[in-house]
Amino acid sequence: MPTYQAPLRDYQFVLNELLNIYQETELKGFDEIDADLSDAILQGVADFATEIMLPLNSSGDVEGCKLLDGAVIAPKGFKEAYKQYVENGWGTLTCDPEFGGQGLPEVIGVFATEMKTSTNMAFAMYPGLTHGAYSAIHVHGSDALKQKYLEKLVTGEWTGTMNLTESHAGTDLALLRTKAVEAEGEGLFAISGEKIFISSGDHDLAENIIHLVLARLPDAPEGVKGISLFAVPKFLVNADGSLGAANTLCASALEHKMGIHGNSTCVMNFDGAIGELVGDAHQGLRAMFTMMNQARLAVGVQGLGVSEIAYQNALIYAKDRIQGRGLSGVKAPEMAADPILVHGDVRRMLMSQKAFNEGARAMMGQQALWLDKAERHNDPEKAKQASKLAALFTPIVKGFVTDRGFNACVDAQQVFGGHGYIHEWGMEQFVRDIRIAMIYEGTNGVQALDLVGRKILSDKAATLMQWSGLVKQVIAENMANEQMKPYIAGLMDSSGDLEKATQFIATHAEKNPDILGAASMAYMQILGITALAWMWTRTASTALAALEAGTTEAEFYQGKLKTAKFYMGYWAVQTRSLRKQIEASSEQLTQFEECDF
Amino acid sequence: MPTYQAPLRDYQFVLNELLNIYQETELKGFDEIDADLSDAILQGVADFATEIMLPLNSSGDVEGCKLLDGAVIAPKGFKEAYKQYVENGWGTLTCDPEFGGQGLPEVIGVFATEMKTSTNMAFAMYPGLTHGAYSAIHVHGSDALKQKYLEKLVTGEWTGTMNLTESHAGTDLALLRTKAVEAEGEGLFAISGEKIFISSGDHDLAENIIHLVLARLPDAPEGVKGISLFAVPKFLVNADGSLGAANTLCASALEHKMGIHGNSTCVMNFDGAIGELVGDAHQGLRAMFTMMNQARLAVGVQGLGVSEIAYQNALIYAKDRIQGRGLSGVKAPEMAADPILVHGDVRRMLMSQKAFNEGARAMMGQQALWLDKAERHNDPEKAKQASKLAALFTPIVKGFVTDRGFNACVDAQQVFGGHGYIHEWGMEQFVRDIRIAMIYEGTNGVQALDLVGRKILSDKAATLMQWSGLVKQVIAENMANEQMKPYIAGLMDSSGDLEKATQFIATHAEKNPDILGAASMAYMQILGITALAWMWTRTASTALAALEAGTTEAEFYQGKLKTAKFYMGYWAVQTRSLRKQIEASSEQLTQFEECDF
Repeated sequence: MPTYQAPLRDYQFVLNELLNIYQETELKGFDEIDADLSDAILQGVADFATEIMLPLNSSGDVEGCKLLDGAVIAPKGFKEAYKQYVENGWGTLTCDPEFGGQGLPEVIGVFATEMKTSTNMAFAMYPGLTHGAYSAIHVHGSDALKQKYLEKLVTGEWTGTMNLTESHAGTDLALLRTKAVEAEGEGLFAISGEKIFISSGDHDLAENIIHLVLARLPDAPEGVKGISLFAVPKFLVNADGSLGAANTLCASALEHKMGIHGNSTCVMNFDGAIGELVGDAHQGLRAMFTMMNQARLAVGVQGLGVSEIAYQNALIYAKDRIQGRGLSGVKAPEMAADPILVHGDVRRMLMSQKAFNEGARAMMGQQALWLDKAERHNDPEKAKQASKLAALFTPIVKGFVTDRGFNACVDAQQVFGGHGYIHEWGMEQFVRDIRIAMIYEGTNGVQALDLVGRKILSDKAATLMQWSGLVKQVIAENMANEQMKPYIAGLMDSSGDLEKATQFIATHAEKNPDILGAASMAYMQILGITALAWMWTRTASTALAALEAGTTEAEFYQGKLKTAKFYMGYWAVQTRSLRKQIEASSEQLTQFEECDF
Repeated sequence: MPTYQAPLRDYQFVLNELLNIYQETELKGFDEIDADLSDAILQGVADFATEIMLPLNSSGDVEGCKLLDGAVIAPKGFKEAYKQYVENGWGTLTCDPEFGGQGLPEVIGVFATEMKTSTNMAFAMYPGLTHGAYSAIHVHGSDALKQKYLEKLVTGEWTGTMNLTESHAGTDLALLRTKAVEAEGEGLFAISGEKIFISSGDHDLAENIIHLVLARLPDAPEGVKGISLFAVPKFLVNADGSLGAANTLCASALEHKMGIHGNSTCVMNFDGAIGELVGDAHQGLRAMFTMMNQARLAVGVQGLGVSEIAYQNALIYAKDRIQGRGLSGVKAPEMAADPILVHGDVRRMLMSQKAFNEGARAMMGQQALWLDKAERHNDPEKAKQASKLAALFTPIVKGFVTDRGFNACVDAQQVFGGHGYIHEWGMEQFVRDIRIAMIYEGTNGVQALDLVGRKILSDKAATLMQWSGLVKQVIAENMANEQMKPYIAGLMDSSGDLEKATQFIATHAEKNPDILGAASMAYMQILGITALAWMWTRTASTALAALEAGTTEAEFYQGKLKTAKFYMGYWAVQTRSLRKQIEASSEQLTQFEECDF
C-alpha cells in the first residue's frame, strides 16, 4: 500500500524562497499571511490527507461507487471522511470570507490541492467540483443566488457539479441539446436533457448537490452564443434555507471508467428540473470561461499530485528491492543483491520524475501567484498583466503537466517491475487515475490549440514576449555568475527553440491555418519544457544564494542544484527534436488526405 | 465495442514485396511456401481472430478469471473458443512437423500472432505460453520428454507455462529459492516452492498443463549457474500417454492486475511436485536464453498488435465523431460540425500510430526472417550472421516496440476524449492490457541494458557495424534517385545520431561503467527509431518502384510514401534530443547520491 510524505519543505521553498509571496504586499490580503500561517495550514492539510484520505484510496478504487434505487453510494469510509473534511473546514481555505471562507490566496490553496490529489484523487474531486460550482456562482450569480448557495458550498455541507458534456457534445459545446424553459415562479426555469461524465454527480456525502448545468433557452441564438448556465439543486431550497422537495433529476447510470472509481461519475437526467440562471441568459459559456484558468490549474495539479506520490513510492521501492549488482561493482556486499536504485535506468526514471515534480511544483506556484495578482493586485495594470500571463500558461499547467505527470506515473510503475502491474502495490491505480486528467476540462489537444491559436497568434505573441522578457531578465541577472552557466545554457537552448518554433508557426499559419493544429502539441511541449527550465534556473540561483549565505540545509540546496543540472541535460534538450517535428511534419499532416489513413 | 480489420494487404507487402521471402530458396522449407499459401493461412487466422476471439475480448476483461475450489475458470466463452482453436490447428503453424506441426516459418507465424494479439491479447497468451513450453522442450528436452509432451503441446490439447519469477526474484533469477530434489523413479525430481506472476498458470481450457519451472538442485552452484529447468505436469502422464494422478501443485491465488484479466495470472505452489529435467542440470538459464529471442519477439508483437487495433478504432472514431470546425474552414457543411479527423492534433496522433505500426510491422517481419535464417539457412555462416542480427535487435523488437506501442495506445485512447476513458469503447482496456508488455519477459530497462551491454559493448559493436553496412547499402542503392532524397536524409540523420551515441558510450563506459545503465534507454530508443527509418526507407524505395512499374494500387503505394515522409519528419527527428540526453545527463545520473533523491 502506498505511503505519503507531504513535501512541506518544498512548499516552503517555493512560497518563501523562490516566489517570496510574503513580500507581495501590494496584493490584497497578503499582508495577513506569513510563513507560520501557511506552514500551519499546509501541515493541517498534510495530516488530514495522509491520515484520513490516503487509507481510503485503494479501497475506494476496488469498491467503487454503487447506484442503488436511484441513489449513488460512495465507497465505504468516504462519507465519514468527508464529514470530517467539512468539520475541519478544509473546503473553506481560498473562499470568500463574506460567505465563510478563509480568503487565503491560490498560491497556498494550490498546494493543499496537490496533497489531497496525491493521497486520494477520487475523493479530492468531490470538494474540487464543489469549489468549481462555488466559483461560478460567486463570480456570476445574483446576490439572491449567492445568499442561497454559497455558504453551504463553502463549508462543503452541500457539494457542487459541473454539467457540460452530452454524449454528442464534448469539446464542441455548440452542439448541446439540453433545454431550459421558463417555469412557474420568478426567475425559475425547467431544465430537461441528459448529461454524461458528470463527476460527483450523485453521492451520499452531502445533503444537497448543486448542479451547474449548461442548457439552451427557447430563444437562444445557435451555437455557443446561445448557451446559458443554470444552478439546479438536487433538493429545492426553501426561502428559509431548509431543504424542500426533491428536484426532477437523477443519476441514471454510473460510468464504467478506467480509474477514479471512488468518484461517482454519473449520467445525469434532468426532467424539467427547476433551476435558476447563473449570470445572464446566453452567457453561460462566458461564465465557464472565467472559471477556466482556475479549473485547469486544479486539473494540472492532479498531474503533479499523483506523480509526486507515485515517485515517492517508486523511490522507496528502489531503495528496498534488491536485484542484480551495480555495473561498477557490488554496492551492498552484505546483501544477496544491490538495491535497484544502483541501476542507471532506474535512476533515470526516478530523476526524471523528481526533476519534473519539483519543476512543475514551482511552476504551479508561479501560476497560482499570477492568478492571485490578477485578482488582488492594487495596481490594475499589473493585475491585467498577471491575468494575461496566467491565461498564457493555463494550457501549460493543464496540458503539459498532466501529459508529463502521466508519463512520470508510468515510469514510477515501471520501477516496480511486475509488482507495478498488480493492484496491491497501488502503482497501477495511479496510472489509471491520472489518465483522465489528460482528457477532462478540455483534452490536452484542445489545450495545445488554445495555446497556439488564442494565446499566441490571436495575441500576436505579445504576452509571450512579455514572459520572454522575464526569462531574459533571469538570464541577465545570473550571467556573471560562473556557477550559473550550466543552467543558463539549458534555458537559453530551449527558449531559443521556443522562439524559432513561434516564428515558424507565425510564418506558416497565414497561408495554411491547419498547421496550427498540426504543430500545437509539440509547441505546447516546448513551452512547457522551457517554462520549467525557467523555474529550475531560478531555483538554482536561489539555492546557490542560500549556500553562499551559509545554511544548515546544504544537502537540500545541493540536491536542488543537482536536479536542476539533470533537468537541463535530460529535459531541456527535448525541445530540439520537438522543434524539428514542427518544422518537418506539420505541413505533411495537413496534406494527408482522408484516404491516406 | 472495437472492430478489427486484419491488415492482410500490409502482410503481403512485407512478405512479398519488402522482404521477398518467397525468393529465400536457401532457407530450408521455404521452397514449400508461396504467396497463395501464406495468404490462405493468414486469412484463416484473420477470420478466427475476428469472429471468435474479438467478441470475447471485452467480456473476458470484465469477467476475469475465477479461482473456485482450487481450480481456475477462464472467462465465459474462452473454453469453447479454445476448443475451436485447437480443432482448427492454429497452434501448430510454426511447430516441428515431426510432432504434428506445419513447419511454417516465423516470418508468417509472427503475423498470425499479431492478429491474435490485436483481437484478444489475454486469450492469445494461452497458446503463446504453450508455444514457449513447446520450444523449451523441443530444443532442450530429451527424446523421451519430447515424445511425452510435444504432440499434445503442438495441437494445444495441453497447454504450457513458464515458471520463473518468485516474489523476491524477478530480473535477478540468481535469487530464486524453489528447490528440486531427486524423487523415486528414474529421472524424477520433486519440486517445491512458490512462483508468482505465472501467466496461464491454471485454467479449464485444456486437460493438462505442462509447467516449465526453474529450480535449484541440492548440489547447485550459487547464483544463475545453479538453476535447472524442469517440466512439471499438472497431471502426471502415464507410460501410455493417458493422464494419471494430479501432481502436488496448485494455483493458490490469482493476481489482481491492471489488465489482461482474461488470462489467468497465478501464484503457483509446488509442494514436492514431480517433474523431469529439461536439458542438463544447472543449465536452466541457458535453456531460457535460447528461447529468449523468440519469446521477446512474441511480446514485441503484442506492442504492435494492440497498437494496430487501437489505431483502427481511433481512426473510425475520428471519421465518425463530429466536433468543431477545421481551422482552414468548414469541411463538412452538411453536418453540424466537422469530423474530428480534420483537426491537426488528431491527425498527428493517428499518423504517429500509423507510421509506427507499419514501420514496426516491417521490422517484425525482418526480425522473424533473421530468426528463420538463423535456424534454416543452408550456409552456416549466413545462419550465424542472421542469428547475431536477431540477437542485436531482440531488445528493439521487445523494448522499443512495446514502449512505443503503449504510447500509441494512449494516443488512440486520447482521440476518443472522455469516451476513451470509459469501458464500453474498449480503448482503456487496450491501454491496460498492453502495459504489461513493457514489464514482462524482461522489463524494457533490462532490454535496454542487454542491448548496450551485451549486444553492443561486449560484441565491440561488430554486429551493429554489420547492420550499419546494410543501412549504408540501402542509402547507396537509392542515392541516385531524386525522389528518395527525403527518406534517405531522415535515415542518415538518425543513423548519424546512432553512430555518435555509440561512440560516446564506448568512450565513457570504461572509466564509468554505470554510464551504460544511465544511457541505455535513450540508446535503445535511438536504435529503434533508426531501425524503423531503415524499414521506411526500404518501404519507400519499394513503393516508388511499384508506382514506376505501373500499378492498379497507386493509392496504397502513395500512402506508403506519404507515411514514410511523415515518419522522417516526426519520428526520425527524435534521435537528436535522445543523443543529447545521453551526452548531457548520463554522467549526472551516475553522480547523484542516494541522499540526493
